Order: sequence, then C-alpha cells, then structure tokens
Amino acid sequence: MTATQIKFSSELTTKLQFAIDDKTKPIGALGQVEHLALQIGLIQNTEHPNVDKAAAFVFGGDHGVCAEGVNPFPQVVTEQMLANFAAGGAAMSVFCQANGIAMNVINMGIVNGDVRWPNVQHAAIACGTENFKVKPAMSKQQCQQAMQVGEQLAQKAVNEGYNLLMIGEMGIGNTTSASALLSSLLDIEPSKTVGPGTGANEAQQALKVDVIKVALARAGKLELSVDALAEFGGFEIAAMVGFLIAAAKLRTPVIVDGFISTIAALVAEKDNPGLSQCWVFAHRSAEPAHTEMLTALSAKPLLDLQLRLGEGTGAALAYPILKCAVAMLNNMATFSSAGISES
Amino acid sequence: MTATQIKFSSELTTKLQFAIDDKTKPIGALGQVEHLALQIGLIQNTEHPNVDKAAAFVFGGDHGVCAEGVNPFPQVVTEQMLANFAAGGAAMSVFCQANGIAMNVINMGIVNGDVRWPNVQHAAIACGTENFKVKPAMSKQQCQQAMQVGEQLAQKAVNEGYNLLMIGEMGIGNTTSASALLSSLLDIEPSKTVGPGTGANEAQQALKVDVIKVALARAGKLELSVDALAEFGGFEIAAMVGFLIAAAKLRTPVIVDGFISTIAALVAEKDNPGLSQCWVFAHRSAEPAHTEMLTALSAKPLLDLQLRLGEGTGAALAYPILKCAVAMLNNMATFSSAGISES
Repeated sequence: MTATQIKFSSELTTKLQFAIDDKTKPIGALGQVEHLALQIGLIQNTEHPNVDKAAAFVFGGDHGVCAEGVNPFPQVVTEQMLANFAAGGAAMSVFCQANGIAMNVINMGIVNGDVRWPNVQHAAIACGTENFKVKPAMSKQQCQQAMQVGEQLAQKAVNEGYNLLMIGEMGIGNTTSASALLSSLLDIEPSKTVGPGTGANEAQQALKVDVIKVALARAGKLELSVDALAEFGGFEIAAMVGFLIAAAKLRTPVIVDGFISTIAALVAEKDNPGLSQCWVFAHRSAEPAHTEMLTALSAKPLLDLQLRLGEGTGAALAYPILKCAVAMLNNMATFSSAGISES
Repeated sequence: MTATQIKFSSELTTKLQFAIDDKTKPIGALGQVEHLALQIGLIQNTEHPNVDKAAAFVFGGDHGVCAEGVNPFPQVVTEQMLANFAAGGAAMSVFCQANGIAMNVINMGIVNGDVRWPNVQHAAIACGTENFKVKPAMSKQQCQQAMQVGEQLAQKAVNEGYNLLMIGEMGIGNTTSASALLSSLLDIEPSKTVGPGTGANEAQQALKVDVIKVALARAGKLELSVDALAEFGGFEIAAMVGFLIAAAKLRTPVIVDGFISTIAALVAEKDNPGLSQCWVFAHRSAEPAHTEMLTALSAKPLLDLQLRLGEGTGAALAYPILKCAVAMLNNMATFSSAGISES
C-alpha cells in the first residue's frame, strides 16, 4: 500500500493570505473564519473556492460487539434510525434540509440483511461485523470492500459537481469500536478512551473498558492503521476512511463530524500522513476522548456545542461557517477597492 | 423609569422540554442546540417557534474619545465603513447575503454630518459623541433619543414580520467606550476591561486605561446603567440598548454580536433584570474582557472563533444554528411517531 500524499502550493498560500489580509477588516479580525478560507482555497487549489453544492454521506452499520451488552440502546435502533433517515425525520435530515445539504444514506451492513428503503443506498458488506472481543470485526478483504464503497461515493459526488462533502454515521455500538481504535492507534489505556457515548452508565462503561482490553490483547501488535480498522472497526467507519482518502485525492474538502467520524480521519491520517489538512473538523464532541483524537490530528474544531449524537449533525451545523468563509474571500471589498484607510 | 419584566411560562417550559426529549435522539444529545430550541420557544411564547425571517441592524457612530489617540485606525474609517456597508462590500454584508439575512444600516451620528447613502438610514443624534474623558459623551436627552431610535426600529421590524433580529455595530473608538462602561457597571479596574480591540498596541492600551480612569473619576457614582450609558457610551450603543429592550417586550429573539453589542445587553439587563433571557449570545470575542460581560449575563455563547471585528458578523455566523434548533423542534420525528425503541 502506498500512502496518499497531498502538497499545497506555497505560491497559492501567499496569494490567498494576501487576498484575505486585503479585505476591509483589521488583519486577522475574523479569526478562525480566515484560517478556514485559506484552507478551503488550498484544498480546492484555487484563489476562488466554492462550497455552494454540499452533500452529506451518512453511513450505517451494525456491530458484533453489541453482544457484550456495552450499549444502552437495543441494536435494532440502527435499523430503525436508517428508516428514520429514509423518512426524513432524524436530526440530520432536518439540519440538512435547513442548510441546503443533499443527504445520502448508505447501509453498510446491518443485522437485518433483508430490509431495503427506496432512498437508502444498499452497500452491505455483511449482516453486521463480528464481535471484536473474540475475533476480528471483519476480514481484511471486507475492510477493503467497505473502504471502496466510500471511495466510489466520494468520486461519484465530485463527478456530479458537489464541491463540499461531509460525513456522519449511525451504528449502535460504534463508540465502543471508535474507543478501541483510538486505544490501538495511539496506545492509550481503554479507561481513557471510553466515555458515556449516547448514554452508557458507569457499569456499561466499565464493561466497555474490559471488552476493549481483551480485544487489544487478542489482536496483538498491528502494523498499519487499516489493520486496526479491520480488527476493531465497523463497516461504516471503514467506508468513511475510504471516503476521506478519496476526497483528499480529489481536492474536495470534507467536514468531519464527531467522535466516530474523527476516528475514521485518524485511521486515514496515520496511514497517509498530511492528508488531514484536507478535512475540516466540525465540532468538539461531548465524548471526552474526542479531544485526544483532535489533538493527534492537530485539529481545531469549529463548534463546541456539547453534541453527542453523530449522524453528521455537527458537520451540518458547521457548514454555513464554511459558506461564509468562502463568501468573505470571493465577495468582500478590499481596502484599495473600497477606498478605506488602513491603520 | 420602570424596569421591563419578562416572565416565561412554566407550563410551556414543560411542554417544550417534553417535545425536545421525545425527538428521535438520546436525551440531551444535541447539547446546546436543545437549550437554544427551548429558549427560542419561550421567548416567542409558542411550542412552534419560527426564525425564518431574519433581520440584522448595524448601528454606526463616532466617538469623541478618539481625540485622545486611543485607536490604531483613523476616525474617518467609521464613515468609510458605512459607505462599505452601503455598497455591500463589508464582512457583515457578505455574511448576511450568504445566510439570507436582511441587513439594515443605521447612521446614529458620525463626525461628517453631511454625508448620506441611499441604503443607510439616517438617525444621527449629533456629529459624534463628546470626549468622555473631559465631559459626558452625551446628554441624558440624547441618550434617550438614541435609545428610542433602536426601540422604533425593533418595533418596525416586528411589524414587518421579522421573527429573528440581530444587532451589530461600527464605530472607531467604541471598544474604549465599551471598556469604560464595563468598568463602571461592574466596578472593575480599567486595566482588566481594556484589550487590544481591533489592534491597539501596548502603548495605546495603556493610554485607554488612563483615559478611562480619569473618566470614571470625573463621572463619580452613577445610579442607573443608563446614566453610565450617557457618560461613557456611544449613540450606536444606546440605540442597541433601546433595541434590545423593545425586542424583549415584543417577545422577539435577538442575537447579540460581540464585545460592543454585549455591553449594550449588560446595560439593558442591569436596569431590567431578567431581560437577557430574551437574547442569544453569538460568540465569545477575542477581546479578553468579553468573558467578564458574558459571565455577568450568565451567557453561554454559541461560537468561539476568535472574532474581533464587530459589525454583527458573529451574530450572522450564529444564525443558522438557531434555524437548525427550531427545525429540530418543528420537523424532527418523535420516538412514538417513528416507532423507535427508547433505551
């Protein structure tokens, strides 16, 4: 496997920074919005970036580790929530509608292998992953397959003219999967990577920690992040990893949602160093260990609203800030054009 | 003067909280977005709030205290920026356009009393305030006049069907004015309320502190916040105070921008305790003493993007979060309607 590399143009960096500093405002007065404008310009490799056509991809999948009782919600909720997305009733559905985002839902493999919905793309790898406490969550081949689903979706979206993508997920049990991946990738004690998730109590959290400890010992030393992905991941997480790598190659910015989406980013970054500069991190999740992930990615998220839902909701909430950053770059007057005195 | 009081319905609080908790997500999983939905419902006094028609009011004014040399920008920039607003080239102009916000610009009194722009409302009280180091910035009558301008604009906007308002400002010198007001209202040393503003260096900041110390000693003890407003305020700040009080009476939410807008909120709240529950605080400004104001108002701002521009830019950036909060309340499926298992 060859790592994907992205190099931003230093000439373009200079041009974009000059354009931002020449806008009618004190230098730096729009703070992180200015950094964002620079980043989006560099990703799209243009002085005039555009994020007017946005699409969200919400990947769903079930997790074998639920057999250990790590979750406060029954596993059938994954299926019920895919149905809710299909009907337009979920938080992500209404946020996408409010902010003009095209929402795509992808079934990466839930326990019920028979169910289909007209507006949910069926890309199931299997009827949920295996229980990673006792065996790898998926085979390396399944992992590659799931990543390819993500890659192909990113490619298709770009072909269709989308210039801003975002990722989110749904999968009962996937905070346990993300915590295990975080422990494995950064060599952190499970007690520090496990949190309440969508509402696990102390006993459930202690159980999560034990399950992850056993799994880490079982899997042993792993060379690549994608190896850890196959051991502890979910199909929806693997799809996001593939999606993120492909979008970076296509120089199309992706807004990464919360705890689960960020672990996909960390997997992709660890095997392809530098790629994370192509992703925008939407928010700091209420899940405590999210901060460990963000720090490892040198990421400064845009929002901190104590969200802990997933689905892509944080990404959808952050999208208008990107629109404003780009509008600043493209539409604001310059000191010279507006005849305004500089200090 | 009788203080304005607002009392939220406890019955409606219960109904709204039930509605929010019945949505298809773990309880509390949308964090601050849920608190926001509750707040907007309570302000508008309805189970089905609406913020689809938004208007921003940007108040401009000049400050006599600029004669002391407290500012890195020449005073003429206030006038130049009003012209920039009029031409649609400012940061606030492009953010409003990007987010579907009607932008209103009001000239509350700049040094050049002769200039007019077709799309800037002329409501000048005088050609800038007096230098508050040596005398009150304005007479009590001028202060009332400026407040009335704000009141009338809020009333007019509500009459026209706007259901979400926001305030911002432009005025070279007005961080000095806001710092002086903060020192006076909360009895804080000027060295702790003065910051870099739009880019003051250390010498300019030290000068700001000295000017405010002299002014506080000159004015002596002040009974009401509006007395402090007349002593140290600006016409644009007084207009925002009137605007905020009127909008609260009209049960119409206002998004308050940064350092200068928040001092208007603090003035209004100190004389009318409890009113601040009708305002949404957009962001934590990069100006250090903004945190003192927010704490005094028990306010938890939505964004923290190191903004220090003013104009209402933080409010415009925050508006889509309010739209999503309301969309959650009005359009998301409930557990019962979607047939989803609760934990």
